[in-house]
Amino acid sequence: MNISSLISRYFHSSINDIEFQKWVSISLKAILDFLENHNGFKIHSDKLPSEISKKFISLKIPDKGQTIPIVLNETIENIIKNSVHVSHPAFIGHMTGASPHFLLICDLIISALNQNVVKIETALSATFVEMQTLCWLHRLIYEKSENYYKNILQSSQGSVGNCCSGGTIGNITALVAARNNAFPELHKKGVYLSYKNAQCVRAVVLVSERGHYSIKKACAVMGIGEENVISIPCHFFTNKINIAELKKRIQNLTLNKVKIIAIIGIAASTETGNVDDLSILARICKENKIWFHVDAAWGGAILLSNKYKNLLKGIKKADSVVIDGHKFMYLTMSQSAVLFKNKKSLDSLHQSAHYIIREGSVDLGKTSIEGSRRFDSLKLWFSFKVFGREGYESLINNAIKNAFLLAQLVSAHTSFELTSQPETSIVTYRFMPKELKMRMELAKKIHFLENKIFAKELKKFDFGKTADFLRVTKKINSILNEINTNLQKEQRKIGKSFVSRTTLQTIWKSQEIVVLRAVPFHPLTNNETLAEILREQEALGNKHFAKIRKRFMKEEAEAIRFFSDFLI
Amino acid sequence: MNISSLISRYFHSSINDIEFQKWVSISLKAILDFLENHNGFKIHSDKLPSEISKKFISLKIPDKGQTIPIVLNETIENIIKNSVHVSHPAFIGHMTGASPHFLLICDLIISALNQNVVKIETALSATFVEMQTLCWLHRLIYEKSENYYKNILQSSQGSVGNCCSGGTIGNITALVAARNNAFPELHKKGVYLSYKNAQCVRAVVLVSERGHYSIKKACAVMGIGEENVISIPCHFFTNKINIAELKKRIQNLTLNKVKIIAIIGIAASTETGNVDDLSILARICKENKIWFHVDAAWGGAILLSNKYKNLLKGIKKADSVVIDGHKFMYLTMSQSAVLFKNKKSLDSLHQSAHYIIREGSVDLGKTSIEGSRRFDSLKLWFSFKVFGREGYESLINNAIKNAFLLAQLVSAHTSFELTSQPETSIVTYRFMPKELKMRMELAKKIHFLENKIFAKELKKFDFGKTADFLRVTKKINSILNEINTNLQKEQRKIGKSFVSRTTLQTIWKSQEIVVLRAVPFHPLTNNETLAEILREQEALGNKHFAKIRKRFMKEEAEAIRFFSDFLI
Repeated sequence: MNISSLISRYFHSSINDIEFQKWVSISLKAILDFLENHNGFKIHSDKLPSEISKKFISLKIPDKGQTIPIVLNETIENIIKNSVHVSHPAFIGHMTGASPHFLLICDLIISALNQNVVKIETALSATFVEMQTLCWLHRLIYEKSENYYKNILQSSQGSVGNCCSGGTIGNITALVAARNNAFPELHKKGVYLSYKNAQCVRAVVLVSERGHYSIKKACAVMGIGEENVISIPCHFFTNKINIAELKKRIQNLTLNKVKIIAIIGIAASTETGNVDDLSILARICKENKIWFHVDAAWGGAILLSNKYKNLLKGIKKADSVVIDGHKFMYLTMSQSAVLFKNKKSLDSLHQSAHYIIREGSVDLGKTSIEGSRRFDSLKLWFSFKVFGREGYESLINNAIKNAFLLAQLVSAHTSFELTSQPETSIVTYRFMPKELKMRMELAKKIHFLENKIFAKELKKFDFGKTADFLRVTKKINSILNEINTNLQKEQRKIGKSFVSRTTLQTIWKSQEIVVLRAVPFHPLTNNETLAEILREQEALGNKHFAKIRKRFMKEEAEAIRFFSDFLI
Repeated sequence: MNISSLISRYFHSSINDIEFQKWVSISLKAILDFLENHNGFKIHSDKLPSEISKKFISLKIPDKGQTIPIVLNETIENIIKNSVHVSHPAFIGHMTGASPHFLLICDLIISALNQNVVKIETALSATFVEMQTLCWLHRLIYEKSENYYKNILQSSQGSVGNCCSGGTIGNITALVAARNNAFPELHKKGVYLSYKNAQCVRAVVLVSERGHYSIKKACAVMGIGEENVISIPCHFFTNKINIAELKKRIQNLTLNKVKIIAIIGIAASTETGNVDDLSILARICKENKIWFHVDAAWGGAILLSNKYKNLLKGIKKADSVVIDGHKFMYLTMSQSAVLFKNKKSLDSLHQSAHYIIREGSVDLGKTSIEGSRRFDSLKLWFSFKVFGREGYESLINNAIKNAFLLAQLVSAHTSFELTSQPETSIVTYRFMPKELKMRMELAKKIHFLENKIFAKELKKFDFGKTADFLRVTKKINSILNEINTNLQKEQRKIGKSFVSRTTLQTIWKSQEIVVLRAVPFHPLTNNETLAEILREQEALGNKHFAKIRKRFMKEEAEAIRFFSDFLI
């Protein structure tokens, strides 16, 4: 196709065409068909992944172009219809979920304007929208004075933070700032020389064992090294960082002249939704002059809820905070932000170039790790305007209510065990056949006692028998891991609902436990959705338990021995 | 607003509403009004930035929500109407520009599906689309066998590369892989211990002085340090890395036991659009066993043009290549990719977590620096299907033709000087009053001779006089810098067109020269657009030159002395 027909067909001068309007309609219809069909439609396509993958095997950029109707039809048939229905009310497995439909309009506008927010020359009003959105988020967290924000809102000096494409980039930005704060020469001279000049041979970052995997990734990228991310144990069940262990570790590291670059508070953990005690962490950081970073990618939104914001008490003392719009603020992919208490914190990341982000400009690219960026802040700005803080509070409170509800259903159920106490909108639990429940409750007690918390009471038990008992318990846990893995996979395959799974070291310290992980934050997820999901899981669990029983029955002697111990 | 009204108003169950369709129509109309009005509409709003900024000064997230019509109206009036018209054919100042309108449909679909491509559980067909797109790009660069791609296309083992949100993240990914290749323990142990164990005290990255500022940023983030990005001089005018200087530098570094992590080839430079000699760089890297990275964020698209792809000859020998969709492939923000010659290169970035990106999965997040990501690869996939390679070739050839055309117009013009030879679709030049042109041509010759390239001929000149002459020339260059800066700012302010400016060390080695930078790659930009832009620049330039003359005229004696030397 020659250049003039390409231009007349596809570039903006022809956007007004009736044909274009038709394609928009067709796309909208396909999207609606996909999104609307909540009851009939399943979360996954009827086709197997292996079948879907066959649609995408041509190995070369096609030489010839095709018309829009043909490509659009292929997109609808092969892509849209084989997408994961993440906004289905029974898709409660991940933090990707429902979004208000007006974001479609925002994305349409963002795409059409195609502003590049790296510099004001390609993003005029967009620059001010992003600055305002960052200020709003900063104030939500740090609650500084009206005057503070008046002075910094559109200033070219200093910065409240950056918008970024995701929480990982946000965490990297915060940790780079922390690292450069600990070693002021590092940005220019690199890790090796800076450590050497500071007579430091090791520097570390401390985070609870529930820390997101992106922390390790960030430290690997930054040259700190994965092994220098020190994992601090959590209290089982509450999943909060163990403060005594943390203090011990700090003391030990300090004695060994290891530099602590940052302590990271989790708010909340992506696996269990629990929040560290940020106030205590803040105090410890202050006492030890350590950078305090809070990864609030998931939980930061809770600051919008007057009812629950106390959960994050102490966050305003953090040196840096990451908060994601595309998680608990219900935005579509991708919108995230990193905020800093001190407006000078980002200075060490300052870049300039001859043709953009010049000194003294208000170009947003001056201190961002990313360069060219989409005008994604519009989505958050628009949502704040439409929902208001109060609307967001309703959504968030409802999501937390859902989690409590699910935890209640699980606790009251004869065939489930709650494995973490929900605080935000994440619940972990596991299927446990009712035949095993009492026995496991007892095992838990004994195990718990063995953990020396009730050292006195432990003495009442016969140790020999206890050890045997715990050995078998371990075996039961392995069996439960197998059952829960299989039931989760099967439920996903059936496709009426989706709950994810993860492994946790819960009370069974030495053993990884497979748990089901639900994130019931969709506004359309309700009591019935949750009950129905549990019903299906119970049925599937019992089926897999029966299978395992049979497997053991084959060797009768073994079975008898096993079950006699098993089902006390 | 309570939760049930929020749900019924804003979540997907009501997406089919007549009201929603109305909002889409209003948005589309506003977008069309903005995009269509190519002749009447200016690139910038009539309002001054200071005036626009006043619309965004409220300092707090609003407590109460507002209805969609109100927020949409505010968005149209304050944001859309005050955006930069980057798709205007006379907006030729940056690599952000025109996009085919069907991308609006893609963005609508991406937003509605809201797939998170970090893991297949939230992105089924999207995972395969991204894999296919990466394969296509890889094959475009590396041209490996059909079989190679058959085996790796949907494999969970190894990877051809990552999609990412921008070229900076791509460059960081490539350099992390290079760094980890040079120091295999580094990802785990960090920079300090790895260097120490390897008895290395310094490691560097080499790139021409035209390297993008993101290289320095990447090295600062990665703990290599900005100062360890070694800038190799370019040939003036061609802007290609000086190979002799590079070799000298490598020898010198090697003698001093400095580890060279990577040499970066530029394809093409963002400032001048010139491409390093990649074949020679590849050979040098091979001989010295150094990682060869090519930053083809801008120029990589040229591989789609059979006519011009030779410009990037040697790129297939690169260990890693970054290529942006949202630049010369005409996509909207943001779509980029980093590709690797060796499918094991990304292994050192491998991450896993309990609940996602498990071992053995095809989750795309396994080796990406970013975590949650938008399904942006759809845009490139869709464009490849609609344009085909041939359509892209037409667009790219036309864009390069535009650059040659502009260079011709500039060269033939009495009041401009071409400051770099275009190769892609970027041209730099400066306004130079015709009264000065002959004199500066002579100065250039003398200066050039002083550069010892024609050392013999230099002897013919009287050195005393030459030195004086060059001193005045320096002053003239300062004046030209002032004029070009002012004319560019004024042209931007008038807003009928936009050309950016940068500073280069051209032939005037010791002096930074302000040049105008045009990126005329928009398909609707043509001969007339370019001629009109030059006409305006000439008028503005002459106006500013007249002002400066007047300034000198105030002190008559000074003026006479100055201009007698000035206008020979």
